[in-house]
Amino acid sequence: MTRPCNDSFLRALLREPTEYTPVWLMRQAGRYLPEYCETRRRAGSFLQLCKNPAMACEVTLQPLARYDLDAAILFSDILTVPDAMGLGLYFSDGEGPRFERPLREEWAIRDLSAPDPWDHLRYVMDAVSEIRRALNNSVPLIGFSGSPYTLACYMVEGASSTDYRCIKSMLYNRPDLLHRILSVTADAVSAYLNAQIESGAQAVMIFDSWGGSLSAAAYQEFSLPYLRRIIATLIRQQNGERVPSIVFTKGGGLWLESIADIGCDAIGVDWTIDIGEARRRVGHQVALQGNLDPGVLFATPETIAAEAGKVLASYGADGTGHVFNLGHGISQFTPPENVTALVDAVHTRSRLLRSGTDRKSPQALDLFTETMATSGPPSGSSANPG
Amino acid sequence: MTRPCNDSFLRALLREPTEYTPVWLMRQAGRYLPEYCETRRRAGSFLQLCKNPAMACEVTLQPLARYDLDAAILFSDILTVPDAMGLGLYFSDGEGPRFERPLREEWAIRDLSAPDPWDHLRYVMDAVSEIRRALNNSVPLIGFSGSPYTLACYMVEGASSTDYRCIKSMLYNRPDLLHRILSVTADAVSAYLNAQIESGAQAVMIFDSWGGSLSAAAYQEFSLPYLRRIIATLIRQQNGERVPSIVFTKGGGLWLESIADIGCDAIGVDWTIDIGEARRRVGHQVALQGNLDPGVLFATPETIAAEAGKVLASYGADGTGHVFNLGHGISQFTPPENVTALVDAVHTRSRLLRSGTDRKSPQALDLFTETMATSGPPSGSSANPG
Repeated sequence: MTRPCNDSFLRALLREPTEYTPVWLMRQAGRYLPEYCETRRRAGSFLQLCKNPAMACEVTLQPLARYDLDAAILFSDILTVPDAMGLGLYFSDGEGPRFERPLREEWAIRDLSAPDPWDHLRYVMDAVSEIRRALNNSVPLIGFSGSPYTLACYMVEGASSTDYRCIKSMLYNRPDLLHRILSVTADAVSAYLNAQIESGAQAVMIFDSWGGSLSAAAYQEFSLPYLRRIIATLIRQQNGERVPSIVFTKGGGLWLESIADIGCDAIGVDWTIDIGEARRRVGHQVALQGNLDPGVLFATPETIAAEAGKVLASYGADGTGHVFNLGHGISQFTPPENVTALVDAVHTRSRLLRSGTDRKSPQALDLFTETMATSGPPSGSSANPG
Repeated sequence: MTRPCNDSFLRALLREPTEYTPVWLMRQAGRYLPEYCETRRRAGSFLQLCKNPAMACEVTLQPLARYDLDAAILFSDILTVPDAMGLGLYFSDGEGPRFERPLREEWAIRDLSAPDPWDHLRYVMDAVSEIRRALNNSVPLIGFSGSPYTLACYMVEGASSTDYRCIKSMLYNRPDLLHRILSVTADAVSAYLNAQIESGAQAVMIFDSWGGSLSAAAYQEFSLPYLRRIIATLIRQQNGERVPSIVFTKGGGLWLESIADIGCDAIGVDWTIDIGEARRRVGHQVALQGNLDPGVLFATPETIAAEAGKVLASYGADGTGHVFNLGHGISQFTPPENVTALVDAVHTRSRLLRSGTDRKSPQALDLFTETMATSGPPSGSSANPG
């Protein structure tokens, strides 16, 4: 295995210079794409789609066929791990994910064990291998997992929650039980991500989607140490290449310094923080991934280009260590053509910024914006060396 | 009118010393109280309860009969203002608030005007007057409103939203229309809060519940300036007494400095920020209100006391300028007796901290925690001079 032809994403994560800012989008293979909906219909259900490596591979590649994205991300669900732990994942229409056997009893928590990913999660590893083959070293493949705290939220609540009543009760009443769940889950996530790396994932991301629902102190006790533990156990190098890690705590803008400290290569940031401020706060310790408001994709191509330009400019003209992304998963209501506008704008504008046009003359970028506004973004053009 | 017997809440908002840290809870008159549910049943619906001054007064006083709270807050809904603007508020079972006529058309936005609070919102003013009479100067009464951006979210979406698709589309595509809505709504909120002050509200709070869904830049353009404008137009003194203002942007922890700058007397903070850190960041510019995780109220009385103690200790032993509250509204699933434990712990522990017992000997507070843990919190005791 060698580096992919387009390794801008990997280089950005390692804070090496890149010619432009690489971009991919959280949930880029998703319901906003008609071809995704079609494959999902064929699969029968979301879960069957996740569990079928050929179909998971198919939907993983769909956004790459449409857009000049600089990375692919494994199509899967964060709840495959608790499902493999025996909790019985199912999806009820319009209600999101649910577990048949949520973790509420002390005996069930004591009995919990980390599943062997090569056994119960083999379908994920098969998907990773199949996607790598299909990608044929064009762009890198990202593997991922939910964070222990986020997984524990679902495992204890048994479903999505607005008030996290069950897990917060456990957290404050029986922290020992929650630590037991988190500890087993951290082991499971470590093994799961390492199996993905061994199967061909070239970078890994941990989604701490619900870490932001914790108090500052509880985050330090119940989410961060387990993220640190996972990062410490990850395979750092596979086939001679570094495998960078990204940690994304949604709503974690207040805690960036402590996240930067756990040893990950990059931090995902949501759109509530100015990315320039985030960069100043973490310095050169880590790369940053983000952080356009997903709501921008409801706007016109001109506005999308302008807003993407603001994120790039705020990060800084040199762009080193920046992976462009949304601050959260793409909405199912996004018009697919708007993603073309975004990806092209990120590539074109970040090249322009690096070339110094912007630094030498602020007017130049304004003029560029004018041009974009009247002619629309170039369509189908490729700023992607891969 | 004179100051209430227990004016600790007002003094804390003005950063004057108090003997203990005053406490009240967002949504303290709510569904966790059986007596509230009973009154609501009698009223027929939530909206009829809001619109009946006698019943609104009754539920406002219910938590004060149970707990040694240091302030009352008007029972009402933030959506009374858009309702008075003609949008047709209604509540459908299990789906939360909805508007019959959400703001989507340009002509409707152009036609929007600020309602006269003495006309269309007279029922709120009648409730304020009636509650003041019933309180008989025991504790101060807080009036409140939603922030322009938060109200606009509901007005444009027509209901609660998870992705804010309609308002984000407007924000990025037609900022002029959104600014028009925000401007009219800011005028409406100013007039509404001033009418509440003239009717007897002794402090006012603005709930920017959805401001935290904005990007850092959009918050500076679409929420903060309208908060500033309202604060500037508020009646500062009524019957010889200062009327302090509190601004609460949920998820606004990253933006505290800029919120402190708009002229409000206090900032409400949610539980994701350490309140000691918040205090260091805003300095002596404003008071702070918050910020216990509402999930703590699912725990045991001993844990509640310990967690409340951590918030008090983090704020600082002198406690000047701190109003204790949750970081968000109390959950409907809170056991009512746990609120007794919280209120008593805040009063008792904050007196102890001020007395210097804690500063002289850290063991003293630990010993106190031990006692609390074995005997439970004192019940029915009053640390409330009112």
